[in-house]
Amino acid sequence: MSNVRESLELPLGFRWAAASGAIKKTGRLDVGMMVADHPCSTAAVFTRNAFCAAPVVVSRAVLQQTGGMASGVAVNSGCANAATGEEGMRNAQEMAGAAARACGVTGEFLVCSTGTIGVQLPMERLLPALGEAGTKLSAANGGFSDFAHSILTTDTRKKVASARFSVGGKTARIVACAKGSGMIYPRMATLLCFVATDVAADPIVLKECFSDAVERSLNCITVDADTSTNDTAIVMASGLSGLYVARGSDEEMQFEDHLLEVLQSIAKQLARDGEGATKLIEVAVTGCPSFKHARTVALAIANSNLVKTAIYGRDANWGRIVCAIGNADPSVDPQKVTVRLGPLTLFELGAPLPLDEDAALRVLSEDTVRIEADLGNGMEEATAWTCDLTEKYIEINGSYRT
Amino acid sequence: MSNVRESLELPLGFRWAAASGAIKKTGRLDVGMMVADHPCSTAAVFTRNAFCAAPVVVSRAVLQQTGGMASGVAVNSGCANAATGEEGMRNAQEMAGAAARACGVTGEFLVCSTGTIGVQLPMERLLPALGEAGTKLSAANGGFSDFAHSILTTDTRKKVASARFSVGGKTARIVACAKGSGMIYPRMATLLCFVATDVAADPIVLKECFSDAVERSLNCITVDADTSTNDTAIVMASGLSGLYVARGSDEEMQFEDHLLEVLQSIAKQLARDGEGATKLIEVAVTGCPSFKHARTVALAIANSNLVKTAIYGRDANWGRIVCAIGNADPSVDPQKVTVRLGPLTLFELGAPLPLDEDAALRVLSEDTVRIEADLGNGMEEATAWTCDLTEKYIEINGSYRT
Repeated sequence: MSNVRESLELPLGFRWAAASGAIKKTGRLDVGMMVADHPCSTAAVFTRNAFCAAPVVVSRAVLQQTGGMASGVAVNSGCANAATGEEGMRNAQEMAGAAARACGVTGEFLVCSTGTIGVQLPMERLLPALGEAGTKLSAANGGFSDFAHSILTTDTRKKVASARFSVGGKTARIVACAKGSGMIYPRMATLLCFVATDVAADPIVLKECFSDAVERSLNCITVDADTSTNDTAIVMASGLSGLYVARGSDEEMQFEDHLLEVLQSIAKQLARDGEGATKLIEVAVTGCPSFKHARTVALAIANSNLVKTAIYGRDANWGRIVCAIGNADPSVDPQKVTVRLGPLTLFELGAPLPLDEDAALRVLSEDTVRIEADLGNGMEEATAWTCDLTEKYIEINGSYRT
Repeated sequence: MSNVRESLELPLGFRWAAASGAIKKTGRLDVGMMVADHPCSTAAVFTRNAFCAAPVVVSRAVLQQTGGMASGVAVNSGCANAATGEEGMRNAQEMAGAAARACGVTGEFLVCSTGTIGVQLPMERLLPALGEAGTKLSAANGGFSDFAHSILTTDTRKKVASARFSVGGKTARIVACAKGSGMIYPRMATLLCFVATDVAADPIVLKECFSDAVERSLNCITVDADTSTNDTAIVMASGLSGLYVARGSDEEMQFEDHLLEVLQSIAKQLARDGEGATKLIEVAVTGCPSFKHARTVALAIANSNLVKTAIYGRDANWGRIVCAIGNADPSVDPQKVTVRLGPLTLFELGAPLPLDEDAALRVLSEDTVRIEADLGNGMEEATAWTCDLTEKYIEINGSYRT
């Protein structure tokens, strides 16, 4: 797999562009479009927040009406168009229509918004920016890079990943970009993530592959345990590689593996760039009766403000890890639990081991800190990713609107 | 009701004391005892964390064996005696026995510990401190005040409250003190809280009254959504007032009312003194089908790092409140929801109202900030209390052990 520092594998059949609609105060790119040359198989997963945003309602309806076909996605950052009532719904619909006209395509557009909740979209600035983006569409790296930039909010860097694979002499590509830095917690999609691929797949098969991969990637990260009102992950498959992903085929297995690899790369990039983060924290929980059981415990550790601040402070206060386990799993037997920090075993089968503070400090000084917990209660496992909790998170979120 | 700034109402039949066992590095008081003149009705609620501490296991067993009778409680701060294996269990049992001997009483002692998880109790310093405390027991304010001090960890102030009430010519008193500043989230008792009263009550009735009051007070606060391994709340009833609390009596109603008042005062004091806090945040959720439904939503708002940092930053970013509601209550109908900040209505029946930023800034500059959310889905309500999330919380928890 390659990432942005190497060359990106852009799939055939897509163009990207971005423009500035002055929705963000900074004047940076804040309106983006991803467009397929022809309407194509499209699948999406959306937030489960009951206060889901107007663009989520509109996009979900489009996919239901078309049976999983769409021509593109229009995105704005700087305004979430959530909790905006009827006016917000009309604006989201108008945004979708204007994006399709700006690109001169016949199919339907999905829409996504991200930014402050409870504020109406500035349509007088958004619509011209969509028009401008429509004139700049490009199938080259520059267009994709602009698009990946335009969706960012408090992110400090782009999140992109791509993969290429071949089956039976045919080669297909997958590329993904995402935004998300705060208000990140997986209960469905988490954040905004856009994936384009040139495999050929029926919408139903595409949805299955995508949901499975999201479950073990985007749905395994947390920054602050808040599921956004706008979370959306979308995959579009142009089919132009000629590599057909039939259910149960070798092609499907290869596609699933590479899609998971791309999305796990995106997931780790998102966690590492969590608001105010200085470290990526990887929490691997093993010895569980099921993947979901393991993920619940892994996310509980990853969501503990106390664990996250201790790691920020390079303090091997591992008691907070067992405390989080005990809260998340009422059935856990402490006598069977082992906890490791990097290569150091801190707690084994119910009792603490002597702590080598110097060795722990070395582990905690790395850019990536790995926590392992084995619960001794089965063969399944899960990994969650998060970041440390720092003063900078407070600073960012104490003045988000100003 | 009176609090510490006024005169405390100390019940008849109890003595308190504290000493320093150098378990905390600061040399402050860290070993305390509350002792009844005679073994008396005692009830307790404990953490639901599966990794519950050795003193929790020991105290729960004592109450089961005695049918709810005890002579006192011994507490240490600075070391949680949690995740400490067999050695921790032996130490907790030895602590209970040594406390009883130090006071020269015949009944059983409960034990509580609070502090760092995963470290063994320094028995060579703890036991002499228990002996010293046994010689200093006092029924006066000084003894109680020392006890209330000795149980603190990162708390910046004591939490005490008391009440006096009369029924049928008989007067009874309730006094409570508590500790807790971080790792606070209600799933049972939350933190350490000690209540003494001179009503007379059977252990079973005492337990019912206490559990009900805890449910609407200590179980309605959160600082950081982590339930401690050591949470314990204990009430002892000496009976010396002669006011007998029979089930269904006027006495019971009066006792319950005053017990709730005392515990709600303690709960608010705990939330206001949350680690790094600058404000008390009160979240009232109305229009729900049940108290538990309302409390779940109120606690979700109170647990949102994003809501807490916005209030710290005096930013009326109310979208984070509706986001938290939408996560906590999948059944909520946004069209029926109204959100208020102090006296200001921000969101009404599904749509945002114009925001008066100056007025919002005034509300957010107060010491106590009240959030109200009406879900339009029933007649029940609940209030939760929390504090804002600040850089100071990060600082405290990034270096807790150092």
